[in-house]
Amino acid sequence: MLTATHNQILRAIGASGPVTRTELVARTGLSKAAMSGLTRELIEAGLVHETDTVGGQGRPSAMLDMRPEGAYFIGVSMLTDPAIVALADLKGNIVARLTMPRDTDPERFAQDLGKVVPKLLEMVPAAREHLNGIGVALSGLIDQAQETCIESTLLGWKDVPLARLVHKAVGLPTYIENDAKALALSEKLFGSARDMQNFTVVSLGDGIGCAHFIRDQLHRGAHGGAGEIAHSTIEPNGLPCRCGKVGCLDTIASVYAQLALANDQGIEAKTLSDIETAATRGSAQAIALLHRAGNALGLAIANVIQINDPEMVLITHQEPAFSGLFATVVKQAIENNVLPRLSGRTPIRSQKLSDDVWARGAAGIATHNFLLGFN
Amino acid sequence: MLTATHNQILRAIGASGPVTRTELVARTGLSKAAMSGLTRELIEAGLVHETDTVGGQGRPSAMLDMRPEGAYFIGVSMLTDPAIVALADLKGNIVARLTMPRDTDPERFAQDLGKVVPKLLEMVPAAREHLNGIGVALSGLIDQAQETCIESTLLGWKDVPLARLVHKAVGLPTYIENDAKALALSEKLFGSARDMQNFTVVSLGDGIGCAHFIRDQLHRGAHGGAGEIAHSTIEPNGLPCRCGKVGCLDTIASVYAQLALANDQGIEAKTLSDIETAATRGSAQAIALLHRAGNALGLAIANVIQINDPEMVLITHQEPAFSGLFATVVKQAIENNVLPRLSGRTPIRSQKLSDDVWARGAAGIATHNFLLGFN
Repeated sequence: MLTATHNQILRAIGASGPVTRTELVARTGLSKAAMSGLTRELIEAGLVHETDTVGGQGRPSAMLDMRPEGAYFIGVSMLTDPAIVALADLKGNIVARLTMPRDTDPERFAQDLGKVVPKLLEMVPAAREHLNGIGVALSGLIDQAQETCIESTLLGWKDVPLARLVHKAVGLPTYIENDAKALALSEKLFGSARDMQNFTVVSLGDGIGCAHFIRDQLHRGAHGGAGEIAHSTIEPNGLPCRCGKVGCLDTIASVYAQLALANDQGIEAKTLSDIETAATRGSAQAIALLHRAGNALGLAIANVIQINDPEMVLITHQEPAFSGLFATVVKQAIENNVLPRLSGRTPIRSQKLSDDVWARGAAGIATHNFLLGFN
Repeated sequence: MLTATHNQILRAIGASGPVTRTELVARTGLSKAAMSGLTRELIEAGLVHETDTVGGQGRPSAMLDMRPEGAYFIGVSMLTDPAIVALADLKGNIVARLTMPRDTDPERFAQDLGKVVPKLLEMVPAAREHLNGIGVALSGLIDQAQETCIESTLLGWKDVPLARLVHKAVGLPTYIENDAKALALSEKLFGSARDMQNFTVVSLGDGIGCAHFIRDQLHRGAHGGAGEIAHSTIEPNGLPCRCGKVGCLDTIASVYAQLALANDQGIEAKTLSDIETAATRGSAQAIALLHRAGNALGLAIANVIQINDPEMVLITHQEPAFSGLFATVVKQAIENNVLPRLSGRTPIRSQKLSDDVWARGAAGIATHNFLLGFN
């Protein structure tokens, strides 16, 4: 049984491993003697292992890191249809993956999942006894307890207690989370934000998501609405949005909106790349459209920087690369709309969204709770 | 000498006092026996007193609260010229106040302050032996350590180690802070946000300031730039701003900008009330100007709500009341630009800025550090 102190050490190893016991003492404030005993217990539990030794003055120190096969988590991404069900290890490696229909009837979806999980575990039998939880990532507003989907336009849900239904069907601790927040958790646990306290993820897909880590925790806000930049007003007299307002970022810069605007103007486009190609071939409409969308997204991100001053902004995208005219305009618009004194000081990174990224994000919801000691 | 646990209890009393020992046990997680001893020590130190008893089942419980005269702090506001130097007690009551020229030479200002402080203490001699620190509020970017003014356009400063200079001249622990952040601290310590974890203050003055409390702490951001909504772009092809960008909120909605725009259009205005009066008398220019400014500020605040979802937004203002056309348009623009699902759920409060509010804010910088145990 892990204590809160074991979990504290696990989180410190997760954030900066491989790491020596001496560094862990400095990071956690625990005594050297206590650290020695606690890390031994974590090694015995199979969650931590010694990976290497590092030289220095005196005798060499062992480096401690998470042991990937020490714990497994199931990640379910409802962002795509079919939905993805994947098995991830403690370090976020995807070791098995299946798909299943994204049934929007919550009861049926949970029951189907109850049948898919055993199949997934057959693929990696060793994972069975180290399975610690399920995370489900979906589009929409999720409650603070990570149990209920308050509202999802994509799935047509209102107040759906999905975590309870999945828990009942699968028999594992289950947590659900908004897609952008799941990506942020995953980036914090496994990605480039491991050692950051404050950062923002902006996910550019059919819709636009956004999530913040602030002082090492996911920031939800008073009503779970933190990060709703998709419905920031960018064009005060702009297009009507399905949310009921006009001129929302979502109406200009989401992939769905860009494709709809392009096709309205006679640009045949199934992906953003098609619009980029048209722009490269000299289509004035395509160029104008990418400028408008890029300026909108850049302004929205600049607003996040002005308001919260994160250490880094990560833009996740569906296209093979975040390049081309749209990306250039986004980056330029960020620079142009940030206070010149602070301009260029916030790294803007990008990452391609793949099925594995979503699956890792979803599993990360459960990993995060495991590391907090909530299982 | 206070320990970290004494400070923890003091902060809990500050946040919810008057409060019973039983409630303090619940809030802090300390044992009943430990609480009894620690509160006795705080009473003996003169920082806490029993104010009343509350009945219930069993014998009545004493209510504990901060003892106002248990500690004093000096607050210096450099927001006005002359600057304000005030003495505040532990509950933020201003018990004495003087003014002094706002010399923008930092050395001279510190030395002048060294002469004013003894005069202030002559007014409340009992405060002398309980004096715990100085807080200085000023316009500009302040470092995380609350020691150095990185940049202040108003004062023409760059990298001025004001806290060190004042400490040397006055001999008390000194902390400096940005004006809006000082107001937020004061609101958290003494005001309507005492029991809130997440809220935002927007100060409307010659410039526009903004500060956030997030999870019970002031949020500074990676470069101290959090809250710089004054330089959010509101009108992409708008007026040039002194920051080097165009269309910043500051160029449209600050008191300075509104007065300049009004006078440019032949509306004689020394205060916002003069523009309101012109609007009431039917001046189309005045009406348009107040609409433009109100829509701009409302949109900027809506962006804060969309991005951070605070529990409350406090607008501080110079005019006698936050009413009239400008205030109406601000509130309407907030509602119009917030996701309908969340619209109307964030209370928008307002507070008139007075010399005492600024002085309390400045003193609050020192009180905050005293309660954290940093003196």
